[in-house]
Amino acid sequence: MKIVLLGSGNVATQLAKALKAVGEEVVQVYSPNLNHAQFLANLIETKAVSDLNDLEQNADLYIISVKDDAIAAVARSLKNVNGLVVHTSGTTDINTLSSLVKNAGVFYPLQTFSKGKEISFVNIPLCIEAGNEDQLTVLTNLASKLSAKVYPLDGEKRKVLHLAAVFACNFPNHLYTLANEILNQNDLDFEIIRPLIAETADKVMSNLPENVQTGPAVRADENTLNKHMSMLTSMPGLQNIYQTLSDSIKLTLK
Amino acid sequence: MKIVLLGSGNVATQLAKALKAVGEEVVQVYSPNLNHAQFLANLIETKAVSDLNDLEQNADLYIISVKDDAIAAVARSLKNVNGLVVHTSGTTDINTLSSLVKNAGVFYPLQTFSKGKEISFVNIPLCIEAGNEDQLTVLTNLASKLSAKVYPLDGEKRKVLHLAAVFACNFPNHLYTLANEILNQNDLDFEIIRPLIAETADKVMSNLPENVQTGPAVRADENTLNKHMSMLTSMPGLQNIYQTLSDSIKLTLK
Repeated sequence: MKIVLLGSGNVATQLAKALKAVGEEVVQVYSPNLNHAQFLANLIETKAVSDLNDLEQNADLYIISVKDDAIAAVARSLKNVNGLVVHTSGTTDINTLSSLVKNAGVFYPLQTFSKGKEISFVNIPLCIEAGNEDQLTVLTNLASKLSAKVYPLDGEKRKVLHLAAVFACNFPNHLYTLANEILNQNDLDFEIIRPLIAETADKVMSNLPENVQTGPAVRADENTLNKHMSMLTSMPGLQNIYQTLSDSIKLTLK
Repeated sequence: MKIVLLGSGNVATQLAKALKAVGEEVVQVYSPNLNHAQFLANLIETKAVSDLNDLEQNADLYIISVKDDAIAAVARSLKNVNGLVVHTSGTTDINTLSSLVKNAGVFYPLQTFSKGKEISFVNIPLCIEAGNEDQLTVLTNLASKLSAKVYPLDGEKRKVLHLAAVFACNFPNHLYTLANEILNQNDLDFEIIRPLIAETADKVMSNLPENVQTGPAVRADENTLNKHMSMLTSMPGLQNIYQTLSDSIKLTLK
């Protein structure tokens, strides 16, 4: 399959490497910034373009992996292609594309990508959507080459998943940041708390989180809760979060 | 070293197994509930007692691993022993013990323990405190047998660590629970989000969390934030948490 990759951010970069690794032919990488396009193109030994007019018109698949609000602008340049055009966004409707191109789909990897952090695609859930069964088969086949976890999902469910991902990924990472803030203020290093973070995530790989909740709130240990609240007096933002989340944990108690 | 273990909960259980694994001699397991004491004693092939009057008086080390508010009551029965008496609590002062026994210390494993989830002690930070250098050496030697990460820490720093652990462990686990609630309401399985949770924790093993924050809040993507808030209209508790944590993430932006 001839693939054109539009984008050069974290998702595009990891996807490009994964596609190359399974032997797929990425014939072009596009970015409005030629340096960015060239950097990624070099990584996977292909051509870079920075002008939408230079896009290959006869590819089988176009993967648009740019910021959500830039998807439509990029898609407009693909209105004449016969290949399948997909975006990689969790929150963007398939209709954003189907109103602009002939054959539209979605190819959403449910994962958190950061430059410089290598990641294996094998365990990444790939959520796909297409306008008809044939297109879905094309995406299923490609996704199955990259990952063992392929989920055909409509746009509504994909949006729900994206929201759940904020709770399961973005918010926990921010709480790690706040924990680090507390540690640093007391000359303690983040390193000391890393094993706890790893085990907390590892526990829910084989359990449901509601069954392995620990800590003062789930024990209704008011003594410790009060001590912690008073330790946070000088950090009102953290105190508010402590109260809000502890109250929410208590609501799960029968 | 002859060790008496007082307690039969999650921490006591994992500690008992770890002590046995490194060849330490646990001579008794105490619990007020004889069945609990016996169950754990059987696991590590030692004796169970349920009466504080039956405690071995000549052990080298007594490890009190019971609920915080039960520590003092248990310690009172050890007022005549010459061995070192430690508790495993993150929030309890060493003075709670030193006012009741001859030789007091702290042996706090910074980890989240659940029954039925096996765990290797090698990576668990063990935070120790003692009344003098000799006692600290005893605890350091024991801790070093169990773990590669031994931290002598005073009570103030240990309390800070315990507070940070709530942010790094208890709260993230609760957010996993809320993510699961959102998924279940929409007939999606928790399994789909597990790889994301694993990667989110894995990223901060080699990075600081503030450098790998992702999601709509850190991008100041108001469009997605508003969409998510409106999706949570029927779940006001989650909506409040979404707002509170997103606001807190935005505060980290320069």
